[in-house]
Amino acid sequence: MKKNFTAPATVKPLEITDVATLIDRALEEDIGSGDATTLACIDMQTQGRARLVARENMVLCGVEVAREVFELLDETAETELLHYDGDRVSNGDVIMTVEGYSSQLLQAERTALNFLQRMSGIATLAARFAWAVNGTGARVVDTRKTTPGWRQLEKYAVRVGGAFNHRFGLFDGVLIKENHIAACGSIQEAVDRCRHASHHLMKIEVEVRNMKELDEALEAGADVIMLDNMNPQQVKLAVERVAGRVPLEASGNVSLDNIREYADAGVNFISVGSMTYAARAVDISMYID
Amino acid sequence: MKKNFTAPATVKPLEITDVATLIDRALEEDIGSGDATTLACIDMQTQGRARLVARENMVLCGVEVAREVFELLDETAETELLHYDGDRVSNGDVIMTVEGYSSQLLQAERTALNFLQRMSGIATLAARFAWAVNGTGARVVDTRKTTPGWRQLEKYAVRVGGAFNHRFGLFDGVLIKENHIAACGSIQEAVDRCRHASHHLMKIEVEVRNMKELDEALEAGADVIMLDNMNPQQVKLAVERVAGRVPLEASGNVSLDNIREYADAGVNFISVGSMTYAARAVDISMYID
Amino acid sequence: MKKNFTAPATVKPLEITDVATLIDRALEEDIGSGDATTLACIDMQTQGRARLVARENMVLCGVEVAREVFELLDETAETELLHYDGDRVSNGDVIMTVEGYSSQLLQAERTALNFLQRMSGIATLAARFAWAVNGTGARVVDTRKTTPGWRQLEKYAVRVGGAFNHRFGLFDGVLIKENHIAACGSIQEAVDRCRHASHHLMKIEVEVRNMKELDEALEAGADVIMLDNMNPQQVKLAVERVAGRVPLEASGNVSLDNIREYADAGVNFISVGSMTYAARAVDISMYID
Amino acid sequence: MKKNFTAPATVKPLEITDVATLIDRALEEDIGSGDATTLACIDMQTQGRARLVARENMVLCGVEVAREVFELLDETAETELLHYDGDRVSNGDVIMTVEGYSSQLLQAERTALNFLQRMSGIATLAARFAWAVNGTGARVVDTRKTTPGWRQLEKYAVRVGGAFNHRFGLFDGVLIKENHIAACGSIQEAVDRCRHASHHLMKIEVEVRNMKELDEALEAGADVIMLDNMNPQQVKLAVERVAGRVPLEASGNVSLDNIREYADAGVNFISVGSMTYAARAVDISMYID
Amino acid sequence: MKKNFTAPATVKPLEITDVATLIDRALEEDIGSGDATTLACIDMQTQGRARLVARENMVLCGVEVAREVFELLDETAETELLHYDGDRVSNGDVIMTVEGYSSQLLQAERTALNFLQRMSGIATLAARFAWAVNGTGARVVDTRKTTPGWRQLEKYAVRVGGAFNHRFGLFDGVLIKENHIAACGSIQEAVDRCRHASHHLMKIEVEVRNMKELDEALEAGADVIMLDNMNPQQVKLAVERVAGRVPLEASGNVSLDNIREYADAGVNFISVGSMTYAARAVDISMYID
Amino acid sequence: MKKNFTAPATVKPLEITDVATLIDRALEEDIGSGDATTLACIDMQTQGRARLVARENMVLCGVEVAREVFELLDETAETELLHYDGDRVSNGDVIMTVEGYSSQLLQAERTALNFLQRMSGIATLAARFAWAVNGTGARVVDTRKTTPGWRQLEKYAVRVGGAFNHRFGLFDGVLIKENHIAACGSIQEAVDRCRHASHHLMKIEVEVRNMKELDEALEAGADVIMLDNMNPQQVKLAVERVAGRVPLEASGNVSLDNIREYADAGVNFISVGSMTYAARAVDISMYID
Repeated sequence: MKKNFTAPATVKPLEITDVATLIDRALEEDIGSGDATTLACIDMQTQGRARLVARENMVLCGVEVAREVFELLDETAETELLHYDGDRVSNGDVIMTVEGYSSQLLQAERTALNFLQRMSGIATLAARFAWAVNGTGARVVDTRKTTPGWRQLEKYAVRVGGAFNHRFGLFDGVLIKENHIAACGSIQEAVDRCRHASHHLMKIEVEVRNMKELDEALEAGADVIMLDNMNPQQVKLAVERVAGRVPLEASGNVSLDNIREYADAGVNFISVGSMTYAARAVDISMYID
Repeated sequence: MKKNFTAPATVKPLEITDVATLIDRALEEDIGSGDATTLACIDMQTQGRARLVARENMVLCGVEVAREVFELLDETAETELLHYDGDRVSNGDVIMTVEGYSSQLLQAERTALNFLQRMSGIATLAARFAWAVNGTGARVVDTRKTTPGWRQLEKYAVRVGGAFNHRFGLFDGVLIKENHIAACGSIQEAVDRCRHASHHLMKIEVEVRNMKELDEALEAGADVIMLDNMNPQQVKLAVERVAGRVPLEASGNVSLDNIREYADAGVNFISVGSMTYAARAVDISMYID
Repeated sequence: MKKNFTAPATVKPLEITDVATLIDRALEEDIGSGDATTLACIDMQTQGRARLVARENMVLCGVEVAREVFELLDETAETELLHYDGDRVSNGDVIMTVEGYSSQLLQAERTALNFLQRMSGIATLAARFAWAVNGTGARVVDTRKTTPGWRQLEKYAVRVGGAFNHRFGLFDGVLIKENHIAACGSIQEAVDRCRHASHHLMKIEVEVRNMKELDEALEAGADVIMLDNMNPQQVKLAVERVAGRVPLEASGNVSLDNIREYADAGVNFISVGSMTYAARAVDISMYID
Repeated sequence: MKKNFTAPATVKPLEITDVATLIDRALEEDIGSGDATTLACIDMQTQGRARLVARENMVLCGVEVAREVFELLDETAETELLHYDGDRVSNGDVIMTVEGYSSQLLQAERTALNFLQRMSGIATLAARFAWAVNGTGARVVDTRKTTPGWRQLEKYAVRVGGAFNHRFGLFDGVLIKENHIAACGSIQEAVDRCRHASHHLMKIEVEVRNMKELDEALEAGADVIMLDNMNPQQVKLAVERVAGRVPLEASGNVSLDNIREYADAGVNFISVGSMTYAARAVDISMYID
Repeated sequence: MKKNFTAPATVKPLEITDVATLIDRALEEDIGSGDATTLACIDMQTQGRARLVARENMVLCGVEVAREVFELLDETAETELLHYDGDRVSNGDVIMTVEGYSSQLLQAERTALNFLQRMSGIATLAARFAWAVNGTGARVVDTRKTTPGWRQLEKYAVRVGGAFNHRFGLFDGVLIKENHIAACGSIQEAVDRCRHASHHLMKIEVEVRNMKELDEALEAGADVIMLDNMNPQQVKLAVERVAGRVPLEASGNVSLDNIREYADAGVNFISVGSMTYAARAVDISMYID
Repeated sequence: MKKNFTAPATVKPLEITDVATLIDRALEEDIGSGDATTLACIDMQTQGRARLVARENMVLCGVEVAREVFELLDETAETELLHYDGDRVSNGDVIMTVEGYSSQLLQAERTALNFLQRMSGIATLAARFAWAVNGTGARVVDTRKTTPGWRQLEKYAVRVGGAFNHRFGLFDGVLIKENHIAACGSIQEAVDRCRHASHHLMKIEVEVRNMKELDEALEAGADVIMLDNMNPQQVKLAVERVAGRVPLEASGNVSLDNIREYADAGVNFISVGSMTYAARAVDISMYID
């Protein structure tokens, strides 16, 4: 299992092994039955050195994944990292260099960059959200609105950017929503059933839409309460009403423009789906000497 | 093999089978060892009906993929499509309904939406680019700057939006770039080697940065020539110089703001990476009755 | 995805899909390049009816898995279930019948029984533990001491027997043990680091060996505390000291002989590894008419 | 392919490669999306040394599998084996030590132990059966009543304990049972069909329930005859009747209490299903310095 | 599991499931990212009927595999078999018809034919060898000289042609060759070690090069003896010397020209590698109405 | 990714990685649950040296694949190549030597040889075809009539023999045949649809059966035209009519006897299916010292 030493010390690292099949798939879809141009033009024995260079300012993320792409195509490749995940990198900075067979560097180029640019794009956007609530005590958390196949990578990029993760998926946390409550008949019944069926290290969060439901969720013994689609003023009222009995999460319609208001309202967590579904890839280029 | 009848008639359809492992992976990463909330709250025999509703205007893309997600989790589910890939759908329109086990609808919801929202996001952006060159005869084409694991899906979304595909990967077209030319010593040598090594149904494109290289590429017998990072004025000069002898492709720094100028300059193809690397997911919600 | 309707209503069901590759592997290792005897002796078109009969008293578990084995080998097979998971079945009772191609019934026999006998063995043992604490309010919970490859199946069998699950694995709950504390320097630091790194639906349990560590864990804000290798008297003291501030779990050296003492000591959870690592398969036979 | 040098010299070794996917599955089910506790508490660069210590007397089995688990999670780990498969190990003996990243040792611990404890449990039980027939010339052999997914591992553990294997599965030996005979009309016809359909290195065994069937099987040219559910007295009569013409196997209702009687009756093979379906895991602990 | 009803009644059938991954791989390598021609030209809803027609005389083999290819690409396809595996088919005979989506018939064509033509080619050649020894009592058997990935298919084709199988691989029969004997020191020691390590349904064959080794193999208790590279006269001497004590197999340099001489020499088995490594595909065409 | 340095410099090399699963499958089908003979006879620690020796004249192909088989079974094996792919090797020449564990050399032998013999068989036949058109300017090209699962290997062997590849599969070149034309109504419509749906680096070839269709294909703008089942005289007429406007390919009924006539007729490409479907494996033996 590949070690990942490049995550900031306080960030849960990414296990490259968990994304190995995605990397394989990415190489397969790009290279397929062989790089028609490179195999014709480049002698198999020629060596070269690639430099990956930032073409705009960014929070870097994914250097171990990019390294893995190069090393999968050339097990003799030697990679030098000049920057690490979490570094703020400026336009023109060299991120890493790779020495190896030129033919393999060229076949790895697009796939390595596609990973690195997209992961850094998410980390860069997450950093802007995290900065926006700086000093308030609120945590910006992600959602399950991730690119199918990319959840590990995108949740890691969110952490690298300085924001936090919500539950990974449906399996590692209970979040009771409207449909669950309707099926059970009441918030109380829904919480009771989940408490019975879940193991004792799993917290139960309940999504509420108004003060009446908020009271019911408190009464039912929810461990965390999500305030769904409330504006900052409503959130503030809810915070006062709960008075610290359980943590509160604001969710819905949060943007860079209004996130500070939510944080100032005193909520503990603010979930922001757009960190993963609206980030654009940043610009990074590769040059071969 | 699942049929896809929803692509517009003139668009090469997506084979669902080709993305089956990605769908499996997406469901696995979201559901994992089981949906802790739904399995506790929802009786396994309860049936329900889900409606997927557009929450903004969009060019729809991915209805067959979404349908597949629901049917994988509930092989008895019955899906009705109210709109098809390529349809222009408005905020509030119902896209599809699915009847089946409520517990499975809830477990499928996020994954189905994650596919549908992202694919529609790309189709919607591609449509804007395609519209921008309408009537000029130029084709907007995509690049290999796609999300790793998603090339089939993203290239299909580009087609559904009305733009066109470039080669799928490194294997189904020859594109000679700077590094290939340097390794071979000249454009002529690079073209000759590729002609020798490639089968006789593969065209050879050469990337050039100036008029001198353009002349060399023409001389070398390139089938297509890519004008790299030229502005519309430079492109216009190149078009005049080539005078129809080979098709020309403009590449680099193309945006919605300037793509019409490139098209008006008379180029045949304009490649736009941002259709796939900078599209944001559109907003679609699911409701269960 | 196959539905499993046979779990008792209050038990989180098993998704057959999650064990599909294990079933495939089991069939592969038994059948390999083909059943040398059956393919020679039995005409491919001959139909038959198999009956699975209990040869001792048991809590039944795994009927859907056994059914799946038969249906994988013969997609036309018709299975009738006479008993369901969780039923108390007596020696001589018919559990299920399967009609289909005789050649396939014979090839499925051993694999279907191997699953059903082992799962029922665990459920039967779990039921004995659950019964032993009946009325005390304590939950008997399993551990991670499961057969590699069988965690889903064994945890399900524990539930069917009437006991409960602990966390599924290392990923869906925090359990701070001696090595973690040593690496962090103190219980407080370990809890703080886990609180920072984990999402907000994950509880933090701390394993303690004595009253001093118990106090530190309480102070550090542990959500649950595990009393490691304490005898019932020590557990009773710990229960009194904690006085309901957090739930307590007893762990280590628990057997059918002493589990009632632990429960009577007032602990909330008692973890019992032997339910999964020391259960023997029960006896079930198959007959073909 | 990993070499396994630790099997006793006269025992057919286990190929680790054959169980690689099971090891992967075991690690996946335990670690999943990441060890929430260890990744938070343990610095990725910290090194440690683990000792695996026997907590009861046993015949050791599975040290190479345990080693593989550690090395999969940390390719730099250095393992020292103090005991080998087949060794009789006492309570307190150190079995092996592993030096490597502490975070990886902790993530490997449970999975490595789960393999080692269960395999040693089977080897220990098999050794008791083998000892019980010591000096009689009879071979104790296993059955196909193995844990699904574990056949290679369990059959190896049986060998390590000093007992022997029967056929691996349905594909590498012919065993004609009641249903096959019924389908063919007679033992003679069943043997003839199998002889025709099987390659010439496969022996044909026939299961008989009484002396009449025994005579028919001899007449039909069976290579081996299985005496099904006969008591030792009946077995003795059968041995006398056959008088060495073919080897005989006793099967059914054999326990540690009566196996010597079967062996003394002069049978060549005694099959014992409980070696694999009723063995409990032995107790082994891991300590990190 | 797909049933295969088309094998001649006395031939062990092929399980389609065992070659499912090879069929998938074959479709993948031919179709890849999509049939560029068919997806452009053929409307997805158009239906058609394909006829597979023999273009030379042959022993037919593989109709179920071909059917599977069509049904994988079009689950609604309806196949009618006009001939079955083992039939002697003449130039111009229609083998099967398939009705389904034209686009899928065209994409399946080459792969279905590639399987059917090669399997029938082997069956046709095997039939010639089987016919050559007709009436002698000798069995023509195949070898392990098969196309990698194709062993199940090629051994089945040999059976369909009327010849027989040797062991499937290294795992289901013992064949002691020169290197094994050298490592053990003597034939006796090699046989003893194999007898100890193998289960009791496995026969032991010894390869000998001359009469001295033949005597040693007999003495050592070999179950079968292979006469390596002996001419028919030497084989005849060996047959006389062995006088029916064990079966004999002739191996090496056997062709259609001399196989009858080997059979007449009285040997029981004649192994012929060229049935699988030198067969050419027969000619079959597909037409779409 | 393994490098392949042994292809002739002008030949597009084979990526071993692309055939890795086929090699795994081949080893699995031969070795299965273990080599019963070798594991019993050969001490696991014994080392040996294998020599692979040509037993007839051939164009060698597949040495890297054979090397990979040995190294998969023994990662410590040391291989020395005495000849490379494309070398003309004579009866008695040593091709390669491998030093490693004897037990692993023996288990690898048959699989390594099965690859090497078949690949060299195809290269040897391809070389005869290539030689037959020497000096004419025509390229001999292969077809899609390859062994399912073997396309990469067989197309590589064709190249090594000195012939050329046609498109790899249905995805990397457009070839319009009779059924496509019928579905579209005319050659013109078929070409137009393919031009619209295909990316701009893909050439369009049209298959024609007579001069009328030839004219239509020229008119429709085909990039290449295939002359289907024409004799050399007809081909000559077609060449004259086309007069160099597009390249021409002859296809159908081409053999070693008549291929020179086709080449002399002035065609650019001659496709020969029999290079892959009718090649027999050449004879190579392995000896262990």
